Amino acid sequence: MDKPVNLTAALATFDEVYSPRIVTRMNDYDVRIAHTLGEHVWHVHSDTDEFFLVLDGQFDIALRDPDERTVILQAGDVFVVPKGIEHKPSSPGGSILMFEPSGTVTTGDRHEGDVPANVDSTTGHELG
Amino acid sequence: MDKPVNLTAALATFDEVYSPRIVTRMNDYDVRIAHTLGEHVWHVHSDTDEFFLVLDGQFDIALRDPDERTVILQAGDVFVVPKGIEHKPSSPGGSILMFEPSGTVTTGDRHEGDVPANVDSTTGHELG
Repeated sequence: MDKPVNLTAALATFDEVYSPRIVTRMNDYDVRIAHTLGEHVWHVHSDTDEFFLVLDGQFDIALRDPDERTVILQAGDVFVVPKGIEHKPSSPGGSILMFEPSGTVTTGDRHEGDVPANVDSTTGHELG
Repeated sequence: MDKPVNLTAALATFDEVYSPRIVTRMNDYDVRIAHTLGEHVWHVHSDTDEFFLVLDGQFDIALRDPDERTVILQAGDVFVVPKGIEHKPSSPGGSILMFEPSGTVTTGDRHEGDVPANVDSTTGHELG
């Protein structure tokens, strides 16, 4: 990466929701962006926290820590889901930026039930 | 951190430039924000890459990799300065988000000449 990447331009290169693109890497971490819409799946990352910044729209995260609650995130809001906490994102539409260790799977080390059709179980894709 | 933090609101809680506040932590990394204005100092982080996202305004990074060049970043642009690359930020005014290992010093492992009065040599401050 020897040039800046504009996040708005990068988001415009793909349409799929819950299918993160890796915009850049630093050390052994990925910086990923994704469009968000609809229900994700309950899942957990046992070994890593997960950082979210909402770029546009709204992004909600249901958490079991241990009582179930939902944090509502608007554009410009940041939130970290601690390792080991089960969570399920949902969104009426929006886009997010995430920091997480390279290799982290979008659906966690384990998830509850089937992965919905609108959720891509992936370690992230390269920007096209 | 059990509630979201809004970056615009967090930036409004302080005025100092080049004096990062830690908005949250994930694993052993900080997410920091800073106002930017004027010339920083040539410095290098020998052991870590450094991630920048421009939130507002403009932020430029002069790099010696090895020939000197300057990348110009506008709002929504991201860039990673690789470990070991000498760099000097400057800005006509703006704000940035940074992702770096906790304990990383703003002026690097070494810097060139005196630290300017408008640059805070710090590992980041807590949000007030």
